[in-house]
Amino acid sequence: MAELYGGVETGGTWCVCALGHGPGAILAETQFATAKPEPTLAQMLEFFRAHPRPAAIGIGSFGPVDLDPASPTWGYVTATPKPGWRHVSVGQVLGDALGVPIAFDTDVAAAALGEKRWGAGRGAESLCYLTVGTGIGTGLLSRGRPWHGLVHPEGGHMRLPHDRERDPFGGSCPLHGDCWEGLASGGAMAARWGVRPEALELGHPGWALEADYLALGILNLTLVASPERVIVGGGVLGHPALLGMVRERLPGLLGGYLGAPELRSEIDRYLVPPQLGDRAGVLGAIALAQAL
Amino acid sequence: MAELYGGVETGGTWCVCALGHGPGAILAETQFATAKPEPTLAQMLEFFRAHPRPAAIGIGSFGPVDLDPASPTWGYVTATPKPGWRHVSVGQVLGDALGVPIAFDTDVAAAALGEKRWGAGRGAESLCYLTVGTGIGTGLLSRGRPWHGLVHPEGGHMRLPHDRERDPFGGSCPLHGDCWEGLASGGAMAARWGVRPEALELGHPGWALEADYLALGILNLTLVASPERVIVGGGVLGHPALLGMVRERLPGLLGGYLGAPELRSEIDRYLVPPQLGDRAGVLGAIALAQAL
Repeated sequence: MAELYGGVETGGTWCVCALGHGPGAILAETQFATAKPEPTLAQMLEFFRAHPRPAAIGIGSFGPVDLDPASPTWGYVTATPKPGWRHVSVGQVLGDALGVPIAFDTDVAAAALGEKRWGAGRGAESLCYLTVGTGIGTGLLSRGRPWHGLVHPEGGHMRLPHDRERDPFGGSCPLHGDCWEGLASGGAMAARWGVRPEALELGHPGWALEADYLALGILNLTLVASPERVIVGGGVLGHPALLGMVRERLPGLLGGYLGAPELRSEIDRYLVPPQLGDRAGVLGAIALAQAL
Repeated sequence: MAELYGGVETGGTWCVCALGHGPGAILAETQFATAKPEPTLAQMLEFFRAHPRPAAIGIGSFGPVDLDPASPTWGYVTATPKPGWRHVSVGQVLGDALGVPIAFDTDVAAAALGEKRWGAGRGAESLCYLTVGTGIGTGLLSRGRPWHGLVHPEGGHMRLPHDRERDPFGGSCPLHGDCWEGLASGGAMAARWGVRPEALELGHPGWALEADYLALGILNLTLVASPERVIVGGGVLGHPALLGMVRERLPGLLGGYLGAPELRSEIDRYLVPPQLGDRAGVLGAIALAQAL
């Protein structure tokens, strides 16, 4: 029997803990609301203490986080706008309390790794995992591994063209106003239209606007990082036609500049939905632990 | 004596060929205007045939280029707007004619590698080389090596906020209009103001606009790719205060979101000028050959 690994996804709303080997081989799993740090971390510890000790635990966390192994605050959530979670240790607390090695990364890097290993990212050495939900997050793999540089990718906060005549909404990001997340996240849609995205009727013009913003942001991701594939997930993509609308727009924005067929006729091989669904994060966290 | 390496930089305006080992150890060098492909390639061959055969030749080319070693058009310039150069073989022609191994990459990836090896990029494993000249080009290193994904980085063509009241100029990019290159390259400045950037007086308001566009583009590069350092070169940076103006603007655009000191008080360690100057490309091409 292969060794057991633990996975933790700490999302802005929910936390998931799991123990196992991968999809179809999860021995135990639990999910609970992300509350204040202390009770949330206590629930994680309770889960792992109630089960056999894994060889390692991977954590995919909402960001921004400190990923520098040489930093005294490695494994911390840093300057998050999430109340109570600024400068909170997650990785070190779990590692110290449980006595197991910890792999710590962003939730989107974990999801990218999970999709590469078991899902829609198989065969791609460079990969972007984009999630459009409450916020917008981007994870990058380079040469098959999560990309870290100075900090980590936070493409959701890039700036895009914003035509204020067509869209007078000022943006919902508390830090940047009309950054990508401020214009196109589920939170932005809810603030602009007064209803949550899942309640916005399918033919509402807000969806064409959303497709335009998603295509612009994915255009910039494509031009800056040139991943082999972009996996587009998150709650906003629950609209059944939205991914197709984005696929229609992207080649026109590129204007024929890059010759790859994946950016033209074969765009449905470039912009793909996740295959692990909302389990990409926790499965990716297990993959992080396995790659330690 | 260490083995000899060849370096070729094929720029939009000039080509440089060199033979040697690195800065301070160049045995022969030549520079000529980039004409039509046939006579230009003939001049490259003439240079290398007149000298001892190198162990390998690195080529840093203007883009877009085909970098896929499995592609029949590896080593080609592809969909460039440069007249006569669309779908032209460079790497294969040189390799076949000279019988030496060829390392082929973009000019900006070569420059990034050269600066990492001998210049302003030393010590950084991930690095962005940004050049703002006739056009805008971006090269990325990941884990010390040029990043290739689906194609290669072409960050100069990303879209940015464009306030048409402040800047009614429609943009100079023949493919995308007001992309970053269309708004902020030297070509865009010349088209907007009617004089070449080096002739625009230092106090002209066009420089504040330029600094705003450069800071916005570097913000997006930082958020998408999170490099450890951005090396900012190219003719437009000849303005003695421009880099400082960009450094002033970037932390404000980030809004305190990412905690790294390099993005705040130590921004002069994050946004840095090249140390190899206009020799980054050809020296980087030699570094490409040495890394083959």
